[in-house]
Amino acid sequence: MPRRVDHDERRRQIAEAVLRIAAGRGLEAVSMREVAAEAGVSIGRVQHYFASKDQMLVFAAGRLREHLEQRIRRGLPAAGPPHAPLRSLRAVLVALLPLDRDGREDARAGAAVLIRALGEAELAERYRSGRSDIVATMAEWLRSAADAGELRGDLDPGLEASVLLALVGGLASDLLLGHHTPEQAIAIIDHQLKRLS
Amino acid sequence: MPRRVDHDERRRQIAEAVLRIAAGRGLEAVSMREVAAEAGVSIGRVQHYFASKDQMLVFAAGRLREHLEQRIRRGLPAAGPPHAPLRSLRAVLVALLPLDRDGREDARAGAAVLIRALGEAELAERYRSGRSDIVATMAEWLRSAADAGELRGDLDPGLEASVLLALVGGLASDLLLGHHTPEQAIAIIDHQLKRLS
Repeated sequence: MPRRVDHDERRRQIAEAVLRIAAGRGLEAVSMREVAAEAGVSIGRVQHYFASKDQMLVFAAGRLREHLEQRIRRGLPAAGPPHAPLRSLRAVLVALLPLDRDGREDARAGAAVLIRALGEAELAERYRSGRSDIVATMAEWLRSAADAGELRGDLDPGLEASVLLALVGGLASDLLLGHHTPEQAIAIIDHQLKRLS
Repeated sequence: MPRRVDHDERRRQIAEAVLRIAAGRGLEAVSMREVAAEAGVSIGRVQHYFASKDQMLVFAAGRLREHLEQRIRRGLPAAGPPHAPLRSLRAVLVALLPLDRDGREDARAGAAVLIRALGEAELAERYRSGRSDIVATMAEWLRSAADAGELRGDLDPGLEASVLLALVGGLASDLLLGHHTPEQAIAIIDHQLKRLS
């Protein structure tokens, strides 16, 4: 019997190769040839799954989002009180920061894809909808935390969520540049959260 | 008599061409040939002033900083009380946001150069020192504003300056992506500043 091919897995492997190249050398180095070499497959195989560089980038952007969701899940309080909105919110903010090697690689690849997205409608829409989803989730937790008395009752959850998301976005660049250490970046997030309590 | 050549001006013209290409099509599109075409000069002329792409990028990054300083000067309160630290601080924060066409073009070029800087020591050092200078200036104004009674006396100027710089960095991406309107981004800055008073 022929071995069954896991097309999703192959597509993911190629997308991971795209992200490694983008993180290390920027999108200018992403080509069918380079991706094939990085993934250890033939150029024909890459072209079988992706008809163009843009198709690869859209799929790779989706992988970045899955990485982020995995980091968030790992960071969420596993034990503890069943309802811990403030801890959950902090976990998401910390997960959005490039604090380790994988996080830095994703942040670099994400920054490269973001620039490309500014000129590509489909990528831009993915970015915008991703940000809107994160802001909505954070606003929900801010509201829950306020209801639970963990945060001030008079705060505007949508506004504060936008502030926090912009803050971690800027801190991500600062971390990549070495302008802040991970500890400093986390202290800045805690400082801002404390302000809301 | 031969016409005197203004080498600085020629260098600037080439750097502006680099920035236009980087903003529109990313650094992958920046080459001696493309820059020469965009600047309307010969490739030999470009090579006369810049021996490599990296030399062009370092000089172009310096131009970005000069653009920012011009925007800040334009935004600073011209009239009014001689000592208006809070208004000066707000003017810098607003000048850092891509609110008009020129600002957006600079922000896109800056983001492209930032990515490159992550792999190039000289560019990275320019970015870091630029950010340190801005944080120091903002901290000084925060301190003055607190001394003048415009802001709370117990705030940590260095910490708050870092928060504000990270915030405008994230808002810049949100503006480029169309996730916020200019009015929303400015409202978020004012919200954060109000918190310090």
